[in-house]
Amino acid sequence: MSSPLKLGVAGLGTVGASLVRLLGENGEAYERRSGRPIAVAAVAARDRAKDRGIDLGAFQWFDDPVELAAKAEIDVFVELVGGAEGAALESVKAALNRGLPVVTANKALLAHHGVALAKLAARKNTVIAFEAAVAGGIPIIKTLREALRGNMVSRVYGILNGTCNYMLTRMEREKLSFEACLAEAQRLGYAEADPTFDIGGFDAAHKLTILTSLAFGSEIDLESVFIEGIERISAEDIEAAAELGFRIKLLAVAQRTESGIEQRVHPAMIPASSALAQVDGVTNAVAVDTDLLGSILLAGPGAGGNATASAVLSDVLDVATGARIPTFGVAPTGLVPYRRARMRAHEGGYYIRLTVHDRVGVFASVARRMAENAISLESIVQRKRAGHEADAEAPVILITHETTEAAVRKAIDAISRDGHLSGEPRMIRIEPLD
Amino acid sequence: MSSPLKLGVAGLGTVGASLVRLLGENGEAYERRSGRPIAVAAVAARDRAKDRGIDLGAFQWFDDPVELAAKAEIDVFVELVGGAEGAALESVKAALNRGLPVVTANKALLAHHGVALAKLAARKNTVIAFEAAVAGGIPIIKTLREALRGNMVSRVYGILNGTCNYMLTRMEREKLSFEACLAEAQRLGYAEADPTFDIGGFDAAHKLTILTSLAFGSEIDLESVFIEGIERISAEDIEAAAELGFRIKLLAVAQRTESGIEQRVHPAMIPASSALAQVDGVTNAVAVDTDLLGSILLAGPGAGGNATASAVLSDVLDVATGARIPTFGVAPTGLVPYRRARMRAHEGGYYIRLTVHDRVGVFASVARRMAENAISLESIVQRKRAGHEADAEAPVILITHETTEAAVRKAIDAISRDGHLSGEPRMIRIEPLD
Repeated sequence: MSSPLKLGVAGLGTVGASLVRLLGENGEAYERRSGRPIAVAAVAARDRAKDRGIDLGAFQWFDDPVELAAKAEIDVFVELVGGAEGAALESVKAALNRGLPVVTANKALLAHHGVALAKLAARKNTVIAFEAAVAGGIPIIKTLREALRGNMVSRVYGILNGTCNYMLTRMEREKLSFEACLAEAQRLGYAEADPTFDIGGFDAAHKLTILTSLAFGSEIDLESVFIEGIERISAEDIEAAAELGFRIKLLAVAQRTESGIEQRVHPAMIPASSALAQVDGVTNAVAVDTDLLGSILLAGPGAGGNATASAVLSDVLDVATGARIPTFGVAPTGLVPYRRARMRAHEGGYYIRLTVHDRVGVFASVARRMAENAISLESIVQRKRAGHEADAEAPVILITHETTEAAVRKAIDAISRDGHLSGEPRMIRIEPLD
Repeated sequence: MSSPLKLGVAGLGTVGASLVRLLGENGEAYERRSGRPIAVAAVAARDRAKDRGIDLGAFQWFDDPVELAAKAEIDVFVELVGGAEGAALESVKAALNRGLPVVTANKALLAHHGVALAKLAARKNTVIAFEAAVAGGIPIIKTLREALRGNMVSRVYGILNGTCNYMLTRMEREKLSFEACLAEAQRLGYAEADPTFDIGGFDAAHKLTILTSLAFGSEIDLESVFIEGIERISAEDIEAAAELGFRIKLLAVAQRTESGIEQRVHPAMIPASSALAQVDGVTNAVAVDTDLLGSILLAGPGAGGNATASAVLSDVLDVATGARIPTFGVAPTGLVPYRRARMRAHEGGYYIRLTVHDRVGVFASVARRMAENAISLESIVQRKRAGHEADAEAPVILITHETTEAAVRKAIDAISRDGHLSGEPRMIRIEPLD
């Protein structure tokens, strides 16, 4: 019989507690699947006395994750502390310095220090596994790093933030305003008291940088991500989208273009009849476009203790069966610098909603500004608002054919300067799906 | 620098030729991703002179795949010959007997001989990889065998046959009859001259047995699969399904029940608003329900030279990086015998379409037969057929609440005997999705 694989688990929040419980309950099955017993040997957390619903008596206890990583008698270090710096970073470094494989769910740590840590792991001839860092229980890391190794990726994109998707789904179904929906999401625990990290698109951006590196073999570059959150999406936009055959999702997209790689997080309109558009609530989904496959889609739970623990377990069992894949799919010295494509050069269709004073000549003026910027229109319609028959303000919705971000911005600026608008113009990018 | 991994490729059809071409074109990228060069060393096919658009000059040639597997100087044997017996089986055995890892796309071989071959591989301390055998470019084998190793699966199901899905999609979109659609699919090359293997559900059944074994750690049992093809699906059923909020797909389902594991392939109604229902044309999709994840869905191309080659390449690169996972996820001696759940005990909702003589008392009689078999009805509606106002025959559509297959069959038999039917009764199972 093989000797047990001894884990050191730092961080006993929801995911850490799930992990320890599952290893206790399903040990026999995991041993059958990995060829050797898996055992927790040491744990670290802040408060030893806290009731987590699991018995920690058999494990060596550390107050300090860094000390656990540096000194505990373990074969694998599992980092579930969280945060890009401090104990998370120092404990991972300590474990790698000992040559221990590291399993982590920490997207922020990887987005900020991924390449440096990958280099350290390679020097110490060990690995960092991080399936749980992106899209929870969806095996997108394994898919990009292993299953698609024969492919050249042209785009990876998806719904990576459950809070935003939950809110957009409820806004659509119940015709709620953004503000009402946010309050409700906070009440139900789907949004934080300070929701900026989620609804501002920053959480999705962290995850995107990791997918970009895996998909394109490039170094991580968080600073270069174009980020726009869902704060300005209105019930009116969602309704107009539905009438036009679209749904609005917060998408994170990394895409190879002629001028470099676009990394962007923003609300996007996608065809309502697509599989991605059916991904509702807190569910996540990731699609990958490649040369050999066309497009594949993975959807599943993006968060939660058990779903995240499932991903951590998959990494632990991979380590147990001897998997030794470089952190970002290629040796870290083989990662190419990230070459940024400017957002102004982004090409695509656009939805533009203008609130105009209802007077003669407005349509003609708007159409002229579009033409001046070489934007051709698929449609231009004036929406009648129910119960506002005598309204002096009317929304005008434009759908453009493919054009550039720069042209759209210039046209909207010009229209604003013309003085026809009675409200802020709104623009939402249309993402073509395969 | 590492020594190259030398491949022997038996079978140079669409997939084999794609594989050889891709290894030539992308060798540098694959080396970066696997840490060592990958090189074709030997090939086997029937006709050496045939133009496959690739240069075979540098490779050792074999007329006989078995001889290649037994004698060529290679590190990995790639079996793309096809067929459950003969050269495919003998060559795989020969390679395993030498301790060589085998990569295969051959679902029939695994469905018939998978367990015996897994045992041989384990004895020889080597592996069989077969990502390409099920759902082409979708990494469902890797997902079940590796990514979900921490989970207990309760159901795995999906759209595994592109021909059937293509036909059902066109029947729905263009309101075609089954016969017209089949003729069209044959003309376009989406269906074989003898389409029985696809439209009869047998291809999906082969693939399902492999997923069952991976999902439940059980031995493969092809004989036990309940199989019903799409031959009897009519445009009328598809239209009625749409009106009721469903779409019809040929599903392959393996499900743990109290009495054992159901393995079934049959047309099924699924909610039209689900992501799975949007999987159209030749696209495949697989969903997995587990204890930790709830449900995840993978969708992508299920066939084609490049998509299948992508899966083969993923296996080859896994072998190159040293992956050593048992064939069906656990040591073959650890596979449990397949315990069959009887189809008559299947529980679910049913769609039943009866063509009845339009006379007094028919509704009451049908309703009584249902009640006698303890079947409660969600709805019972008589459909008016356009242009058949004066029709003496009218279709009656019943949707049942959850009941058993045995009860439904008994009820339909009784209704048939009552003499009210003027046409064959039709029944389609409703598959609940998570």
